[in-house]
Amino acid sequence: MHAIERVLDFIVEIEKLKSVTRKTRPVGLERYENSAEHSWHVCLSALMLKDYADDPIDIDRVIRMLLIHDLGEIDAGDKIIYASETAEQKSREAAGVRRLLDLLPEGRGDEYFRLWEEFEEGATADARFARAVDRVPPLLHNLHGGGHSWRKHQVSKERVMDLNSRIALGSRALWEEMEKRLRGAAEDGLLK
Amino acid sequence: MHAIERVLDFIVEIEKLKSVTRKTRPVGLERYENSAEHSWHVCLSALMLKDYADDPIDIDRVIRMLLIHDLGEIDAGDKIIYASETAEQKSREAAGVRRLLDLLPEGRGDEYFRLWEEFEEGATADARFARAVDRVPPLLHNLHGGGHSWRKHQVSKERVMDLNSRIALGSRALWEEMEKRLRGAAEDGLLK
Repeated sequence: MHAIERVLDFIVEIEKLKSVTRKTRPVGLERYENSAEHSWHVCLSALMLKDYADDPIDIDRVIRMLLIHDLGEIDAGDKIIYASETAEQKSREAAGVRRLLDLLPEGRGDEYFRLWEEFEEGATADARFARAVDRVPPLLHNLHGGGHSWRKHQVSKERVMDLNSRIALGSRALWEEMEKRLRGAAEDGLLK
Repeated sequence: MHAIERVLDFIVEIEKLKSVTRKTRPVGLERYENSAEHSWHVCLSALMLKDYADDPIDIDRVIRMLLIHDLGEIDAGDKIIYASETAEQKSREAAGVRRLLDLLPEGRGDEYFRLWEEFEEGATADARFARAVDRVPPLLHNLHGGGHSWRKHQVSKERVMDLNSRIALGSRALWEEMEKRLRGAAEDGLLK
């Protein structure tokens, strides 16, 4: 098989991300979001928020990271952030990413697998910022959507505050703004 | 309003791209594709196809271009590639992109408006490659989906070949591969 045929096979296979359903609804929509449109949304969000990163980042690496960050869900499915991630889920996702990247011509996928791992580990400035931005849309969905996902999954105010305060690891300004909005939601009874 | 609040307003507003329906169905899905998930798909496709660009390109600029290339559809809607684009449609899209980018802090949107225009004009190497990649998924959707969109919109083989041969302006190797597949589809009676 020619190398370009393998890339096209990859392009067809990753379409499956369009059928992975997430736990929140986009603002103004009745249906749940899928992980492909979410991936677009966080990439463009990161680009527009890049000046709020606390540490120097390479925004193009951040965007590449976010383009692939959810590929593991094609084989492993989406999990709500408020559930604790098991080692099993993590290893299913890693195997799924590996399977997809192995569709590419020999060796071409290696750098992307390392980039995916970097995002998962969240230790570098790029990964911390990418992970911070990844948290923002689901919060906006809840804030603009009557807290639908918080209610449905019975997530407490403390849990929302605790988990999302990690946004501050990538951008203190972004967490400051989101925290203000979450406090407002708590005052309005949207978040309990 | 603080600058970061304006960026968050932009992030909420662009979610509307998730409800713009396109003319083809992703491989394996019964529903039509939306322009947000399509945007993700072409960004990642471009990244994996970057070595097939005929001229030197800046893949990160290409990806930024593709992240925003469909934003005009939020106000103007999606049009099938096989319909001739009117000046009115084009100017509605430009006004739509302007409106969205004006949500951003003062002056921040200007470079992205120019990038959007560059994609539309298709004159630079980056834009030619971005436009070439943008053509590929709808062809794959038809090739793997019984030619559903070609049939529905009564698009002839000649029109498909003619319009998509523009892929060669960005990547001859990519067009060569797609042309081979389209000829195969014509032989199988999928494309008439």
